[in-house]
Amino acid sequence: MAVLQKDKLKERLLQNYSDELDHSGVSGERMASRLSLLSEIGVTADGGSCRIGFSTEERQAKELVKSWMQEAGLVVREDEAGNIIAVFAGIHPNEPVVLSGSHLDSVPNGGHFDGPLGVLCALEVAEAWKESGYQPHRTYEMIIFSDEEGARFNGGLTGSQAFTGELEMEQQLKLRDGEGKPFEQVVREYGLAANRFLDAKRDITEIAAFIEVHIEQGKVLENKDVPVGVVTGIAGPKWIKFSFKGSADHAGNTPMYDRKDALVASSWFVYELSGIPKEVSPTAVATAGKVEVFPNGINVIPGQADVYVDMRDISEESVATLSERIIQKAHEAAQLHGIAVEYNETLDVAPVPIQMEMQHLLLRAVEEMKLTPVLLPSGAAHDTMVLARYVPAAMLFVRSQGGISHHPDEWTTLDDCVQAVHVLKKAIESLVSR
Amino acid sequence: MAVLQKDKLKERLLQNYSDELDHSGVSGERMASRLSLLSEIGVTADGGSCRIGFSTEERQAKELVKSWMQEAGLVVREDEAGNIIAVFAGIHPNEPVVLSGSHLDSVPNGGHFDGPLGVLCALEVAEAWKESGYQPHRTYEMIIFSDEEGARFNGGLTGSQAFTGELEMEQQLKLRDGEGKPFEQVVREYGLAANRFLDAKRDITEIAAFIEVHIEQGKVLENKDVPVGVVTGIAGPKWIKFSFKGSADHAGNTPMYDRKDALVASSWFVYELSGIPKEVSPTAVATAGKVEVFPNGINVIPGQADVYVDMRDISEESVATLSERIIQKAHEAAQLHGIAVEYNETLDVAPVPIQMEMQHLLLRAVEEMKLTPVLLPSGAAHDTMVLARYVPAAMLFVRSQGGISHHPDEWTTLDDCVQAVHVLKKAIESLVSR
Repeated sequence: MAVLQKDKLKERLLQNYSDELDHSGVSGERMASRLSLLSEIGVTADGGSCRIGFSTEERQAKELVKSWMQEAGLVVREDEAGNIIAVFAGIHPNEPVVLSGSHLDSVPNGGHFDGPLGVLCALEVAEAWKESGYQPHRTYEMIIFSDEEGARFNGGLTGSQAFTGELEMEQQLKLRDGEGKPFEQVVREYGLAANRFLDAKRDITEIAAFIEVHIEQGKVLENKDVPVGVVTGIAGPKWIKFSFKGSADHAGNTPMYDRKDALVASSWFVYELSGIPKEVSPTAVATAGKVEVFPNGINVIPGQADVYVDMRDISEESVATLSERIIQKAHEAAQLHGIAVEYNETLDVAPVPIQMEMQHLLLRAVEEMKLTPVLLPSGAAHDTMVLARYVPAAMLFVRSQGGISHHPDEWTTLDDCVQAVHVLKKAIESLVSR
Repeated sequence: MAVLQKDKLKERLLQNYSDELDHSGVSGERMASRLSLLSEIGVTADGGSCRIGFSTEERQAKELVKSWMQEAGLVVREDEAGNIIAVFAGIHPNEPVVLSGSHLDSVPNGGHFDGPLGVLCALEVAEAWKESGYQPHRTYEMIIFSDEEGARFNGGLTGSQAFTGELEMEQQLKLRDGEGKPFEQVVREYGLAANRFLDAKRDITEIAAFIEVHIEQGKVLENKDVPVGVVTGIAGPKWIKFSFKGSADHAGNTPMYDRKDALVASSWFVYELSGIPKEVSPTAVATAGKVEVFPNGINVIPGQADVYVDMRDISEESVATLSERIIQKAHEAAQLHGIAVEYNETLDVAPVPIQMEMQHLLLRAVEEMKLTPVLLPSGAAHDTMVLARYVPAAMLFVRSQGGISHHPDEWTTLDDCVQAVHVLKKAIESLVSR
C-alpha cells in the first residue's frame, strides 16, 4: 500500500458518497475532510496510522480536533489525564450532562477509523446543532480519551480509567515503555504531571449518560448488510492455558496403539472446543489462538502440547459456563487419550453488559433513521467498558469493511460514518431533551 | 544422572545376570566388561555417550575393539571409509562370506547400547567359536561401520554406504560440520583420504549374507516381554508438510459461525490422521510431530496452521496408500471447514523389506533358544537398510528399557544382550555351515 497522499483519504471517502445523507446540519464533506486531516498525523510507510498514546502524534491530533471544537464555539478544557472535553452548554447547565466521544491514539501501524470516527461523530452532532440552531436542555459534552489502545505500556484505557477514578496509580507508576522510559517521564514530556493524574476523576453524578461510536472490528454488520449495530455488552476475555502431557517417543518405532501423543489429544480438544460456544449462548466465542508443541520435531511423537484458549461472552454467568465446559472437555480429551492435562487461568476480565434502557435508546434512533435494527456484542474492550461500570452507557458499532482493524487497510465508507452520526444525534437529542 | 564411574556399567549389568546363559563359549562377563570399557570413551556429563562419527572418540572406540579382535586371533583390516573388518577364516575361504556388525559412533548425548551392542554380539560369536573350537565352512567377518548416526554432518550411514558403493561423493564433499569444517578435512584429521573413500566399495558377490543386532528403540518387545525380535522390514520415512490456510480474524469480534480457523481444521486433521495407519497395515505409523501456527496470538483466530507429518511402513505400496489417505483426509479437513490446504513432500526414503528367508533364519534361531518368536518392523534407519539393497540381510532387535534411545538412560539388560548373542550365533552358524 502506498504512503497516504494529502487529501487522499478524503477523496476516497467522497468518491461513493450519497449526499442525500447531508441533512439536519450534518455534513459528509466535513467528516471526510476531518478524517483525512487526522490521518495525516503519524502516517506510516504502509499508509496506516501510528499515534501511540502519550506521543507527539496523539498530542498533535488532540490539538487539531481541539481547534475544530473551538472554531465551533465550544468551550474546551483538558483534564489532568490529558482527556480533552468540549462543552455545548444546555438550557439547564446544572443538570447531569450527556457525554460522547472516543480516542485518537492508535496501535503502531493501525487504521484511520478506530477512535477518530467516534470523536468526530460526537463533534459532528454539535456542528449540526450549531447549524440548525438546536438548543439542548441538558449540557452536551464531547470527550477525547487519552491512550485507549495502550500500545506504549501494554495497558490501555488510561484516560477513561483516570476519568472514572479507577486507574491504579501505584501500578501505573511502575510502567516503562519499550525504551525503558518510566510512565512519569513519558507523561511529563507530554505536558502532564503523573502525581496529578487522579485529579482527572470526574464527579460521576454529573454525568447522565455516555455513548461511544466505534468501528465494529468484525464482520457481523457487513454480513447483515447494515451500516450500524447496537452493542449489547462488552465481552471480557478469560484466558486459560492447557498443557497436555503425554510421552515423546520415536515416531518410527512406536506402534500406533502404544502412543501417548499429546498433540492428538490436544487436537481433539481444539476441534471439540469450537463447538462449545454455540451451546452456551449466541454471543459466546472461544478460540485456541496459540499452540506450542514439544519437542516439535517431525519424527518425534509430541510429548507435550500447550493450547492457549481465549473465551468471551457478555455476561459473567455465560463466561463461567463456557469455561467450565471447556475445562471439562480438556479433561475428557486427556482421559480419552490416556494422558494428563493441567491448566491455569492467565487473564480474567469481567464482561460489562449494556443496560437495556440504553440499548433501546440506540435502537429507537436506528429505527427513526429507517435502518434495520441489529444487536451484537463487542468482543474487544473499549472506553465504554470503563464508563459503563459507573454511568448509563451505550455503544454504536459502525460497519468495518472485511472486519479489518488495527491495520492500515481498516475502512468504513463515508455513508456508514454519516449514518452513525445521524443515529448518535437522535440518541443524544433524546437524552439531552429529558 | 551421575557421571559414569569406571566399571559402573559393568557392575550394573552383572547385578541381575543369570549366568546360566553362559554356555557354548558365550560369556556375559566379557560382554559386560566390553560394553563398560566402551562406555568410558566419550562419556558425557549426564553419563551418556558422545562419540560423533569421525571424531577422536569414535577412533578410540574402534581401536579398542580392534585390539580385542586381534587378541582373539582375528585378522583385522580397515577399509578406505574407516570401516573395521575382522576375519574368522572358514574352511572354504573362497566361498562368499557371512558378515555381522554395527557401529560405535553415537549421537551427542546418547546411550551405551545403540551400536556397540551389535558390534560386540558379532565379536562374541567369534569369541565363543574360539573357546569351543568351532570351525565354520564359510568365512565369518565382523564389521564396525563408520559414522552411522551422522551427528556431525546431518547425514549418517556413511560407512555402510561407502561399503556398498552408494555413497554420493560429490554431495559428501560439499558437507561441512557445525564448525564449518569440510568433510575432506574432518576425515583427513581422522586418518582417511576423502578421494579414496569409494575404494571401500566391497565386491558384493563376496558376501553371502549380513545380520545386524541392534537395540529396538521402541517398546514393542518390552510390552510383549521378550528379549529379542525379528525385524520384518525397515520403514522409510515420508515427510509431508500440510499448510492449512484460513483467515486471521479478531478472536473477540468474530462470531463462531463466521470463522475460517486454520487450527480447528488442522486439529480435526491431526486427530483423524491418528486413526488412518491401522486401516492400512499393522506396521504403518503416522505422526504429526511438528505444528506451527500463525500468527500464534492467543486472541487472534489462527490464519494458518502448518502440520508436518512423518509416515512410515515397511513396503512401498503401503506407504503410498498411507500417504494417499492422509492427503485425502487433509483435503476433507479443508473442505469441511471452508478453508484451503496446500502440501508438499519434504522427504521420501524408500522402505526396505527384509527377505522372508532371512526372517525365517532368525526365527528358527529364536525358537532354538526357546524364546517366543516375535516379528516387528524397524521404524528407524540402520546400516542394515543400506546392506539389504545388495545382499540377503537380517536384523535382530533387542529389548530396550522403556523404549528409550539416543539418551543417557538407554538400557538393555545383560540377559537380553546375551540372549541376542546366542540367537545371532545360531543364525550365523546356520549360514556359515551351508
